[in-house]
Order: sequence, then C-alpha cells, then structure tokens
Amino acid sequence: MINFSPGPAALPPGVRDRIRDELDDWSGTGLPVMEQSHRAPPFMDFAEASLERLRSLLAVPQDRSIVLVQGGASSQFALLPMNLHDGGAPARYATDGHWGRKALREAARGHACLGSLRANIGEVDASYVHVTSNETIEGLQWHDPPVTDALVVCDMSSDIAWAEVDLAPYDCIYAAAQKNLGIAGVTLLVLSPRALARSPDELPTMLNYRALVAGASMSNTPPTFAWYVLDLVVQWIIAGGGLAAIGARNRGKADSLYGALDASGFYRTTAPADLRSAMNVTFRTPDEATDSRLLTEAAAAGFVGLKGHKAVGGLRASLYNAIEPADVHALVGFLQDFERRA
Amino acid sequence: MINFSPGPAALPPGVRDRIRDELDDWSGTGLPVMEQSHRAPPFMDFAEASLERLRSLLAVPQDRSIVLVQGGASSQFALLPMNLHDGGAPARYATDGHWGRKALREAARGHACLGSLRANIGEVDASYVHVTSNETIEGLQWHDPPVTDALVVCDMSSDIAWAEVDLAPYDCIYAAAQKNLGIAGVTLLVLSPRALARSPDELPTMLNYRALVAGASMSNTPPTFAWYVLDLVVQWIIAGGGLAAIGARNRGKADSLYGALDASGFYRTTAPADLRSAMNVTFRTPDEATDSRLLTEAAAAGFVGLKGHKAVGGLRASLYNAIEPADVHALVGFLQDFERRA
Repeated sequence: MINFSPGPAALPPGVRDRIRDELDDWSGTGLPVMEQSHRAPPFMDFAEASLERLRSLLAVPQDRSIVLVQGGASSQFALLPMNLHDGGAPARYATDGHWGRKALREAARGHACLGSLRANIGEVDASYVHVTSNETIEGLQWHDPPVTDALVVCDMSSDIAWAEVDLAPYDCIYAAAQKNLGIAGVTLLVLSPRALARSPDELPTMLNYRALVAGASMSNTPPTFAWYVLDLVVQWIIAGGGLAAIGARNRGKADSLYGALDASGFYRTTAPADLRSAMNVTFRTPDEATDSRLLTEAAAAGFVGLKGHKAVGGLRASLYNAIEPADVHALVGFLQDFERRA
Repeated sequence: MINFSPGPAALPPGVRDRIRDELDDWSGTGLPVMEQSHRAPPFMDFAEASLERLRSLLAVPQDRSIVLVQGGASSQFALLPMNLHDGGAPARYATDGHWGRKALREAARGHACLGSLRANIGEVDASYVHVTSNETIEGLQWHDPPVTDALVVCDMSSDIAWAEVDLAPYDCIYAAAQKNLGIAGVTLLVLSPRALARSPDELPTMLNYRALVAGASMSNTPPTFAWYVLDLVVQWIIAGGGLAAIGARNRGKADSLYGALDASGFYRTTAPADLRSAMNVTFRTPDEATDSRLLTEAAAAGFVGLKGHKAVGGLRASLYNAIEPADVHALVGFLQDFERRA
C-alpha cells in the first residue's frame, strides 16, 4: 500500500516503528509520551531539544521565534490580520490558487485585497503581503518570495521542509504538520521581531502571537503526541542528510513523475511548466471516465490517495517527504501499464 | 507505575493495546489512522459513528450540536465572548477557582465580570454565565448548574464524562480531552440552538461556533489521531457500563481516598467538604518538607504525578476515569505506610 494522499499524508518508514517501540515507555519514564505531563521535566526537556532540532533543520534565523500551536493553517487565516495588520494599507494576498483565496476570504473584510505573484504583488504599498508557497489543489509551487518592504507572510503548510529554503525573507511562516512534518494536530509558526511587535496587547493569549511566543509553545497544554511525532520526522530528515538531501530526493521524485507524464501522449499535466509543484503533481487522462477507472485500478494495485481535489477533479499524486523514490517508480510503472491497457 | 497526573492523564488499560494493535492497519484500510485522509470514506464513516457514540454516552440532548475542535479549553476562553456575548449586560464568571479566574481574564475587558457560585451567580442580569464544573488546582467540584435565564457556559475539561450529568441546563459546554476522554489535542464543544444563534456572521470560520458546527468538525483537517483515541476511550467507558458505572466507580475511588485522609491525623485535605472534587484530591502533610519527601518516596514506589499545582503547593492525586480502584487502594496503602514512618 503506497499512500499518495494530499494530507494527512504518509509517515516516513521507521517513524511508525519508533512510535510502536516507545508506546509503553517513552524516554525511560515508564509511561507513554501521550500520558506525560507537559510541565514535568521529561517533556519539558524534550520540548526544548525538539525545537532546537527543528530550528537547526530548517535553518531558522536566530532572531526568529518558533512556536507550535494547534488549529491548523486555517486558524492562522483568522489570526494573521488580528496580529499583523498595522491599521494602514490593506494586506495583499496572492490568490493564484485555492488556499491563497481561502486565506483572503478568512481575513477581515476591508483589511485585505487580492493580488498575484505573477504581477509582483510586492510593488503596491501593503500592511503585509501573504503568499502560499505551494498550492496543493492546482499543484503550483512558488520558489521566490515577493520583493517588498511590507511584512511577508507565507503559508508553507504543504512544502515546509521540502528542500533548502532561505527563510530570512519571511516575517511570518505558518505550516500545519500533516504533510511533510508529521500528523494532524500541530502547526509551526516562525515569527520575526517586526511581526511580533504588531500583536495588539488586548488580543487574548491563545490568539496573540507575542503571547504565544512568550508562552514557549506551552501557553496551554500542547498536543504532546503530535509534537512527539513531528520530532520523530525531524530526526528522520536529519538522519537522511537534512534539507539538502531531502530536496535532491524530492526533486528527483518529481522529475521522474513529470518526465513520465510528459513522455506520454495519454496523460497531461495541468500546472504551468514554470510553477510545477514538486509536492503535488496534478494530471489527467483523456477523459473523466478514464480518470475514474484509473483510480479504481490504482486502489486495487495498492496506490491510494490519487484522486484530485473535488474543486478541480482529475488526478493528483502527492509526493511529500515520506514518499520514497521507489514508490514513485512503482507509480510510474502502474501509469505506463494502465496507458498500454487503456 | 501509576499515573496520578492532573493531565495529560493516564489512558484506560486496553486503550494503549488497541493503539498498538491498529497502528499499521486501522479499520481494515492497510494504513494507520494517522495517515488517513479525513475526506476519504473510512475516516468520514468513523467520524460520524464516533460522534454518535459520544452523544449517546454523554446523553447530549438531541437539539444540541457536538463539534470537535483544536486548541484546548484555553482557546475557548477567547472564543466565548466573541461568539456568545449579546452586546448587552456583561457576562458573569464564577471565579471561585484558578481556571474560572483565567477564563475571566481572557474574556474581553469590560465584557465580563466576576461572581461566585456560592452567591448564586445567576441572580444578576448577564449576557451569559460562565462556570467551571471542576477546578483542578484547588480540587473543587460543582454539581449544580447556576439557575438563570442567561446562557449557561461551562468548562467541563476536568470532569467531562466523570458520571451521569444532566447536560440540558448548559448552552455551551467545552472540554479538552486529555483528562477523562483521551489525549491532548482535541476539545469537545456542545452548543444549544440559542448559543449558536449568537455567533456574529463576520467571525472567521475557525473562530465561529456556527460555522464550526456547519463544518461538522471538518472545517479544516481535524486532529485525526487524537479524535481516534477519544473514541477508544468512549468505547471503553461504554463497555464498562457507561456513565452510571463510571460515576459509581469514581465516587468509590474518591470516598476511599478522602476517607483515608480524614481518618488520619497526619494528612489534611484542603477543599471545603461540600465542594470536594472526585477528580482531584488536594491534600497536605504537616509541612512542606514532608510533602517533598513524600513526593520523592512516592515516585520511587511508582506513584507519579502527585505534586500539587505550583500556585497552591501541597499534594494532589488526580483520579480521572482511567485510574483503577486498585490504583487508589495502592496509593492509600502507600500514604498509610508513609505516615507510620514519618
């Protein structure tokens, strides 16, 4: 069974084994990690060490604060304008894809307006500029941050830790863990000093970036198990050579699948060539009935999660970090075989 | 090792075994629950069935909506006034304990004021009345809802599902799972029609009770693993005879410990007799140095999590649902032995 789901996504091989091995006795405590008090020394020590590993893996600049929260990226859609809007010019949102448009819709009306990365969103005066580095539904990935003096905010939920990325241009990065960094239930925030300076004092603690940073990811009980799995995934990426290695591997996986699709007269990809995502490869057969038949046969052959999002239809293979090159090779073989039989 | 932690707390025996058994193949899918897409039929079917089990276990009135969210009870401290305040009289908060006071502090200034359950909080005109059914730090439990025409809001985080409770008087119940219902990372909301009618349309989806109910706990990716563990715990309570049985068991556990403490001239309990919590038993030895020695010896004997909250000091045994009567019996034996040696 190979899981090409867009998320919650596959976990790396080995992570499940660690979870099983440590289920009854985590870190020599004689108790599972999910039964640990977050205020007791074993979890406090883990928390500090795991955030340092995460900082090191992602090469987070030293002046940035890292905080783990709950609620997924969608909760940040609501919190961004509450925390980061300076009360002046509207924020500008790149709405080239589904998630960017959703982030805009969830921002307070009148406080935000749309833009496009294609038209250099950063040229216009803005309170902050919001981009989505990878659009999972359309399969688009943006590699360059907008050039602007405004705060730059980026939803990296679907390509965090996919490769080496310079995080310095971003004042606020947010990323849910369940694609490249673990399971659903924990979300990463990386905040610059000038972003943190904007949170109004009157915002309640759990909605206030500055207060959440002051609380060191423990403003209330954190999602301890999801945090633990995130750390296992971080350890796995580090053990495999870090972001340089995973980036090369991810580019190789994507090249292999896009190459096979391009070489075929049967399949067609749907993303513009210059914006093809290495995380979500969107494609189609000649017609919808054949798409459906492919999904059924793929599932029977052990390839799951290949259905395109209902907003766009078609097919999608999500090649997040945990997907092995051999998994992509097997999928290519299945697709070529299906084409011969179709 | 017996875990008397105030939360994240012990899981029931058997739940860990289910987690291990189903780790590689959940519900016949060939994949772990944490790698399931929440939009695919296996998880969708589970979600619906698990919410029905929860409704049945808690005897939630049919006109109430149940929704699972992230962020813990503390996030609800911020959302309550945003969703439930009617713009008229201030909300009134029972501030007899730490968590009630914190809920008040996190509500918007000027929109809420303090009160006491002792003084019948419901007598004064209020936008809504907020109570905390169990105060974990002081070890206080309130069994009767306030009598009022206002909306009644209750933080049941630390005694949800502890016994049969009539939920009809409550317009908004919220409860984080990590004490009586599972692990950290998922929070239960139960909302009445008149509570839902108050959410302003302009609130973003993830902060808006009416929108969250409309999203059926899937407004965004839910914390699938924490949800699954919650359901395992619900199944365990049902298999043990439901809330009537667990209530009798919990009362028996508390009586056993309070009885032993009362019979001793060495220990003293700290909660007023009429408000003693069945969930958190707060007590002390004659002095702080002896408290410390007890904690050290208890840990060596396998009793963990007995330290009182730093705000009040002393000792605390949390007797949540997963604690077995035999665990309490063992603790009583240890306490009597410690007294003899002290």
